[in-house]
Amino acid sequence: MAYEFRYERRIEFSDTDMAGIVHFANFFKFMEAAEHAFYLSLGFSVHDLMGGRVVTWPRVAAECRYRHPLRFEDLIEVHLLVKEKRRKSIRYLFLFHKVGEEPRCEYARGSITVVCAGQEAPGMPYKAIEIPEAIGSKIETAPEAVLAALEHEEK
Amino acid sequence: MAYEFRYERRIEFSDTDMAGIVHFANFFKFMEAAEHAFYLSLGFSVHDLMGGRVVTWPRVAAECRYRHPLRFEDLIEVHLLVKEKRRKSIRYLFLFHKVGEEPRCEYARGSITVVCAGQEAPGMPYKAIEIPEAIGSKIETAPEAVLAALEHEEK
Amino acid sequence: MAYEFRYERRIEFSDTDMAGIVHFANFFKFMEAAEHAFYLSLGFSVHDLMGGRVVTWPRVAAECRYRHPLRFEDLIEVHLLVKEKRRKSIRYLFLFHKVGEEPRCEYARGSITVVCAGQEAPGMPYKAIEIPEAIGSKIETAPEAVLAALEHEEK
Amino acid sequence: MAYEFRYERRIEFSDTDMAGIVHFANFFKFMEAAEHAFYLSLGFSVHDLMGGRVVTWPRVAAECRYRHPLRFEDLIEVHLLVKEKRRKSIRYLFLFHKVGEEPRCEYARGSITVVCAGQEAPGMPYKAIEIPEAIGSKIETAPEAVLAALEHEEK
Repeated sequence: MAYEFRYERRIEFSDTDMAGIVHFANFFKFMEAAEHAFYLSLGFSVHDLMGGRVVTWPRVAAECRYRHPLRFEDLIEVHLLVKEKRRKSIRYLFLFHKVGEEPRCEYARGSITVVCAGQEAPGMPYKAIEIPEAIGSKIETAPEAVLAALEHEEK
Repeated sequence: MAYEFRYERRIEFSDTDMAGIVHFANFFKFMEAAEHAFYLSLGFSVHDLMGGRVVTWPRVAAECRYRHPLRFEDLIEVHLLVKEKRRKSIRYLFLFHKVGEEPRCEYARGSITVVCAGQEAPGMPYKAIEIPEAIGSKIETAPEAVLAALEHEEK
Repeated sequence: MAYEFRYERRIEFSDTDMAGIVHFANFFKFMEAAEHAFYLSLGFSVHDLMGGRVVTWPRVAAECRYRHPLRFEDLIEVHLLVKEKRRKSIRYLFLFHKVGEEPRCEYARGSITVVCAGQEAPGMPYKAIEIPEAIGSKIETAPEAVLAALEHEEK
Repeated sequence: MAYEFRYERRIEFSDTDMAGIVHFANFFKFMEAAEHAFYLSLGFSVHDLMGGRVVTWPRVAAECRYRHPLRFEDLIEVHLLVKEKRRKSIRYLFLFHKVGEEPRCEYARGSITVVCAGQEAPGMPYKAIEIPEAIGSKIETAPEAVLAALEHEEK
């Protein structure tokens, strides 16, 4: 059972905008990339065939607060935590740091809420489903103490 | 004094992802494009020279809730409203509809909070500043009744 | 029968990079958007259902030469020309100008080659097909004199 | 002296489009990322301070031929080769493979031509300059035999 994951990435030129910093919408791509790498680390994919149907995870909510800008070639760590796991959905928390920076500075903090969805056959619509056991057995909500410490750190 | 703006846009192929719908991060680009078009409609730019310094609007927070997917070639309207105007910052609300659709359906709803920032000379850092009168005199918070109606609509 | 199309677009903040100009990869998105708008103007879509199968246009080649940078809020015109129409493919030429600029300056020039592809049923692979009559009857190669004049202009 | 570099990358969800494959414009982002990683491996950056001025590398031409689609989560290798080094410019060649695939398949092949440009002070325009010795002494054109073998492979 996993409740966190650390994902590294180097900021690319195409991630930046004319303000000289990472464009704010790209933080959502980085969060998603961290989430998908989390799934891969657990042995499945965000878009996977399971029991004859496609199981995937559409996003229903996303948010981010920006504290300090990130720049070209920064080597960042996106720290994923499972904030809340429910029957059909998961809410992830993401903290942005620079790798190796001391003292640690939080550059941004965001969250994404995903819903588990199944597709019975190609071309058919996706419907919300209960998280399959094969996945649900691998992911758990982070301990309250861990999440509380982060709330504290935020202030 | 303006407190709202309507911005139209057609969904492009490069806005979509392999799920066949608009990638969730692109809703933030659309919100930003609506905000910038709002500024242009008022006679200034999001990145403008004013009184010898560059005035621009870095984002400090952004969020979006996704209700229904948008697809390639959908003609959408992003309805911008000024949710809160403060001394140095503005919070915008954005509602996503399809142009001409009846009955109207809300596809997504998001918000972006921007801070007014000034740069004294090229290469120098940006600092939060009070919204210049030339801009502040053109933008006002939406009337409470308008915002309340939207809150209601949301449920 | 059409052999050219003019497509306007305003450069957005998210199109730029830290060099303060449009990121070079985005010129390809603009060319594609012009091509798709060309199809819409002719009454069909780049991804359309025709005679029970999906007909679409994967890209097999793309190129661009960059002469002058484009910047945030520039209002540009992408001039599409049909450089070569063959049995299963079309090669488009794209010229980038600013709307209303005199004397006219060519900011970039690119081309994209697309192949007509059909998919018999959802989930099946796409195969190169002959351009359907309903489409082929609407698009023709630009007259030699028009293309020759552009070659000349280029030097 | 280096004339080649191998860069690995995993295809992300946001790289794909509704055709279920990597959007064609993103191949240019991957080529650029490989080029920038090449510079980092040599001890400098694509946007660097050298002798009191900013030295950077605007693109003047780019092209790509697409042979087979790349898909979500493919682990790819972009093989960079120095096709031609001149006084003020470099032309790179890029070959796209999947890591570990046997027999090897070439998914795409592209090139980018960059010009060395200097900026004397913040806010001033960039001008083409001779490649600084500190950089030029580290990069060389690939041997003819290597390039000829690739030409052959292409047919």
